[in-house]
Amino acid sequence: MINLYCHVIDVSHRKSYCHRRLNFLGSKFNLHEMLNEMSELKELKSVPHRDFYNVRKVDTHIHAAACMNQKHLLRFIKHTCRTEPDRVVAEKNGKKMTLKELFESLYMDPYDLTVDSLDVHAGRQTFHRFDKFNAKYNPVGASELRDLYLKTENYLDGEYFARIIKEVAGELEDSKYQYTEPRLSIYGRSPDEWDILAKWFIKHKVYSPHMRWIIQVPRIFDIFRSKKILPDFGKMLENIFLPLFEATINPSDHKELYLFLNYVTGFDSVDDESKHNDHMFSNKSPTPDQWTHEQNPPYSYYLYYMYGNIMLLNNLRRERGMSTFLFRPHCGEAGSITHLVSAFITADNISHGLNLKKSPVLQYLYYLAQIPIAMSPLSNNSLFLEYSKSPLREFLHKGLVVSLSTDDPMQFHYTKEALMEEYAIAAQVWKLSTCDLCEIARNSVLQSGLSDKEKKHFLGCNYTKEGPEGNDISRTNVAQIRMAFRYETLCNELSFLADAMNSADIHLAQSQ
Amino acid sequence: MINLYCHVIDVSHRKSYCHRRLNFLGSKFNLHEMLNEMSELKELKSVPHRDFYNVRKVDTHIHAAACMNQKHLLRFIKHTCRTEPDRVVAEKNGKKMTLKELFESLYMDPYDLTVDSLDVHAGRQTFHRFDKFNAKYNPVGASELRDLYLKTENYLDGEYFARIIKEVAGELEDSKYQYTEPRLSIYGRSPDEWDILAKWFIKHKVYSPHMRWIIQVPRIFDIFRSKKILPDFGKMLENIFLPLFEATINPSDHKELYLFLNYVTGFDSVDDESKHNDHMFSNKSPTPDQWTHEQNPPYSYYLYYMYGNIMLLNNLRRERGMSTFLFRPHCGEAGSITHLVSAFITADNISHGLNLKKSPVLQYLYYLAQIPIAMSPLSNNSLFLEYSKSPLREFLHKGLVVSLSTDDPMQFHYTKEALMEEYAIAAQVWKLSTCDLCEIARNSVLQSGLSDKEKKHFLGCNYTKEGPEGNDISRTNVAQIRMAFRYETLCNELSFLADAMNSADIHLAQSQ
Repeated sequence: MINLYCHVIDVSHRKSYCHRRLNFLGSKFNLHEMLNEMSELKELKSVPHRDFYNVRKVDTHIHAAACMNQKHLLRFIKHTCRTEPDRVVAEKNGKKMTLKELFESLYMDPYDLTVDSLDVHAGRQTFHRFDKFNAKYNPVGASELRDLYLKTENYLDGEYFARIIKEVAGELEDSKYQYTEPRLSIYGRSPDEWDILAKWFIKHKVYSPHMRWIIQVPRIFDIFRSKKILPDFGKMLENIFLPLFEATINPSDHKELYLFLNYVTGFDSVDDESKHNDHMFSNKSPTPDQWTHEQNPPYSYYLYYMYGNIMLLNNLRRERGMSTFLFRPHCGEAGSITHLVSAFITADNISHGLNLKKSPVLQYLYYLAQIPIAMSPLSNNSLFLEYSKSPLREFLHKGLVVSLSTDDPMQFHYTKEALMEEYAIAAQVWKLSTCDLCEIARNSVLQSGLSDKEKKHFLGCNYTKEGPEGNDISRTNVAQIRMAFRYETLCNELSFLADAMNSADIHLAQSQ
Repeated sequence: MINLYCHVIDVSHRKSYCHRRLNFLGSKFNLHEMLNEMSELKELKSVPHRDFYNVRKVDTHIHAAACMNQKHLLRFIKHTCRTEPDRVVAEKNGKKMTLKELFESLYMDPYDLTVDSLDVHAGRQTFHRFDKFNAKYNPVGASELRDLYLKTENYLDGEYFARIIKEVAGELEDSKYQYTEPRLSIYGRSPDEWDILAKWFIKHKVYSPHMRWIIQVPRIFDIFRSKKILPDFGKMLENIFLPLFEATINPSDHKELYLFLNYVTGFDSVDDESKHNDHMFSNKSPTPDQWTHEQNPPYSYYLYYMYGNIMLLNNLRRERGMSTFLFRPHCGEAGSITHLVSAFITADNISHGLNLKKSPVLQYLYYLAQIPIAMSPLSNNSLFLEYSKSPLREFLHKGLVVSLSTDDPMQFHYTKEALMEEYAIAAQVWKLSTCDLCEIARNSVLQSGLSDKEKKHFLGCNYTKEGPEGNDISRTNVAQIRMAFRYETLCNELSFLADAMNSADIHLAQSQ
C-alpha cells in the first residue's frame, strides 16, 4: 500500500498536475483576499463580544517536559531550593541526598542560577542538530536535574514535574480561552510503565480542564535492543499496548490506568525524522516478533504497527462505550517524504508537515483529504527551517487545515504566553488578518482531542457540518465569507477531479 | 550648515568610501561572531543571577496615548461602563452626558464591544497610509471615545487616561526590570497647554518610578495657521517654550509646571515624515515671526528652532541646578534623507533611523558619532517597511547604537508584554544571541532619560567610560569580549580616519 502510494506521488505528469492545482488554489485565495478582505473584516466587526482574544485556541502539539517557559522552570527550581533545601530528593549509590546536597554535588549555588546557565533554550547551535537539541532538556547540562524536575519516575515520584505542570495549567485556566495537549512518554521498555504513569497522574492530581493528554512513543527500539532490554520489536509493542487492552477488558483490575485513560485522547510517534533508515517496509519485512536485530525499524513500520494496535484497541473500547484514541504522529518535520505517505494512510492528523513543501502530489492529497497539520514555525526556526521559509502561510492560503502550536516553550519561546507569542509572530511576519488568525484557532479546536460537547460549545452546535453551515461566527469569529470560499473551493476541486475521472473512464470504455 | 552636510553626503567617492567601510564593519562582526560566539556565551553563563530577563530594558520610544495594548483598552472601557454608567463624562452642545448616554448616542452597547469593533490595531490597510494609521487612534472610529479615554483635556480632566496609564505603570513596576518613556503632546496652539498638562499630571498622580516623560511636539503648524489659531510660527514656538522659561526663572509662580518638569526628560518632534515640503531651509528663510503663510515649515526648520530653544533653556536650568532636557526627535522613518542630516547636527538621539539604510555616508557618520537610534521594527512593519527588510540586525552588527522600542503597543502588538514581544520577535526572526539582546537592552538604558544614579545602578558605576571598562557584566549581562570588540573596532576606525586625514594634510603641504 505504502509502496503503491510512493509510486503514485513520484510520476512526473501527476507532479505537474498537482503543482498546477496547488498554484491555482494559492492564486484563487489571493484573489479572494483582494476582493473580500474588507467584507470579512466588516463581518467580524459586527460580531458582538467575540474577537481573536476570546476565541478558543488549542496548543495542538507540545511536550509536557518542555511545556513551561525557561524563566518559569528557573523560578520553580529556585523556589524549591529556597523552601525545601533539606528535603531528600534523590538516592545515589544507596546514599540519600537532600536538594541542597544535590546542588552541592553539582557545584552549583541555586541562587546564582540564570536562564543562561540553565541553558535549556535552543539557539543557533541547535540548527540541524537534533542531538544538541535533545541535550537541552538537561537543565545546566545535568541529567540529575532533568530527572528531578522533568520526569514522572524519580525519588519524589515525579512530584516536582507534576507541580510545575499544574502551575502551567493554572495559567491556562486563568487565561480562560487557551487549551493545550501535552505529550507524556511511554517507551515500551517495560510492561509497568503505564501503571507508574497512571499512578503519578492520579497521585498528584495532574488533571486540568484545560489540558488533554497525548502519549508519545519515541522511536528508539534500537537503543533498548542494543542494551538488551528488549528481545524483539514485538515485545516493545506488547509493553505499549497490552496494558491498555487489559485495562479496557478488566477496568476493575487496573483502576488507576483505567481512570487515567479517560484523560488521554491520542497517541504520538516521536523522534528525529532526519535519521536515515535503509529498510524498506513491505510484506517481506519481518513481523515484529521476528524483528530481533539492533537496527531500528523504519518510520513506516512504527506507524503501521501503532496504527494497527490503536484501531484494534479503539474498536474494543467503542464496543464497551469507552473513549477512543486519535493517532497524531510527528510527521514531515525532516527526513524522507515517504513518512508523509505513511501518515496519510494511518494518521488522524500530523504535527509539522514541513516536507509537504517538497511534494506537490502529497500536498494536494493532504488538501483534498483535509488532514489537519499542527505546525510549529518557531520550533522549525530553531531546528530545521528558517522562519521566513516556513510554508505555513502558503499552506493556510491554499486551504490546507493548519493550526499553530508551540512544540517546546521551554526551548523556543521568550514570553510568558508561548502560544500567543506563536500567533503574534505569525501575524506580524506574515501580516495575517484577524480572520486568518481565527481560522487557525478554529482549526486547532477541530483537530484537538477536546470532547464533542466542548467542541459544540467552542465552535457551535453544527461544527461537524461542512461549510458556513458548520460555523457559528458568534463563537469562532471566522467570517462566513471565508467559510463559504473554503467550502466552494474544495467542492469545485473534488468535482473537477470526479469529472476528469469520469471522462477518463468513458475514454477507457470507448477504446476497449 | 545643513546645506553643507547635504553636499558632504552626496559626493560619489565619499559614498563609495563609506559604503566600503560599512561593509568592512559588517564582515568584521560576522568574523567576530564566528570566532567568539561560544566564548561570549560562556562568559554570560558564568555571570551569577543575571540573564536577559533581569537586565534593565527601557522602551525608548512609545506614545502615551497608545501605551496600553488593544485588549487592555477594551477591558478598561468595559470596566468603566460597568462600574460608572451614570457618571457625567462629557458635555455636548451644553448638554451633559453620562457614560451610558454617550454610548447610546454612538449606538453602541459596551458589552458587545470587541477588539475588532474597537478597531485601533494597525493592519495591512495602514501600510504607507499614515493618515489611516492616525485615524486608528479613535476607538470604534469615534473621536468622542478618543477624547474621553486617551486625552488629558476633557470633561473628566483626563481622569480615565491617567488611570489607564497608571495601570500600565503598575504592570511595569511588577515586572521590575522594564522602564518606559511615554510621549505626551504639547501642540503650541495656546500658552496654557503646559499648565493644563502639569495640572493633569499632578492631580491624578501619574508618577511612576518606571516611567520618564517626553514631550512630543507635532509638526502641524499649517493646520493651526489655516484655522487662524496662530498668526505665525514664532507664536507656536512661544507657546511651547515661554512657559518653560518662566517656570525655570520663577518656579514659585508655576509650582505645578515646575514640579512636572522634574519628570520630563526630553523633547520629541513628531509627524508623518513622508509628507513632502519644498521649502529649503537656509539663512534666507523667513524667521519664525515672519513665517506667516499657511505652508508648513520644513523638518529642518522645526528641528533647528526646537534645538535652539532647548539649548537656551538647558543652559538656564543648568545654571540654576535644575534638570535639563534631551532632544530625541523622530527621524528617518520615511521621507527625505536630509532629515537625518538635521538630526545629526541637533539631536541627542533619534527614533526610527530607517533611512540610514539609504545613505552610506550618514550611516557611517551615525556610527562614528555613536548616535543612539531607538528602532521599532514592528511599527515599521505596519507602516513603512516590512519586518524582513528592517535594517536593525545589520545596524546592530556594524556597531550602530540601536535599541528596541514599541512605538504604539495599542496599534502594533498582540501580547500583554509589548516590549518583550518586540525583543522576542527580533530574537526569533534574526536569531539574535543572548549577548545581542543584552547589548540592545544596555543601549536602551544608556540612551534613555533615566538619571545618572539609576544608570549607575543598572549598568555599573563606570558606565560613562568607554569599552569594557565601562561595562559591569554582573549588571548588564553583555560579554566583555563583545564590549572589547566594539571599542577596538571604533578606535581603529577613528584612528584610520585620523591617519588618512594626516596623510592628506602632508600631501597638501607638499603640493603647496
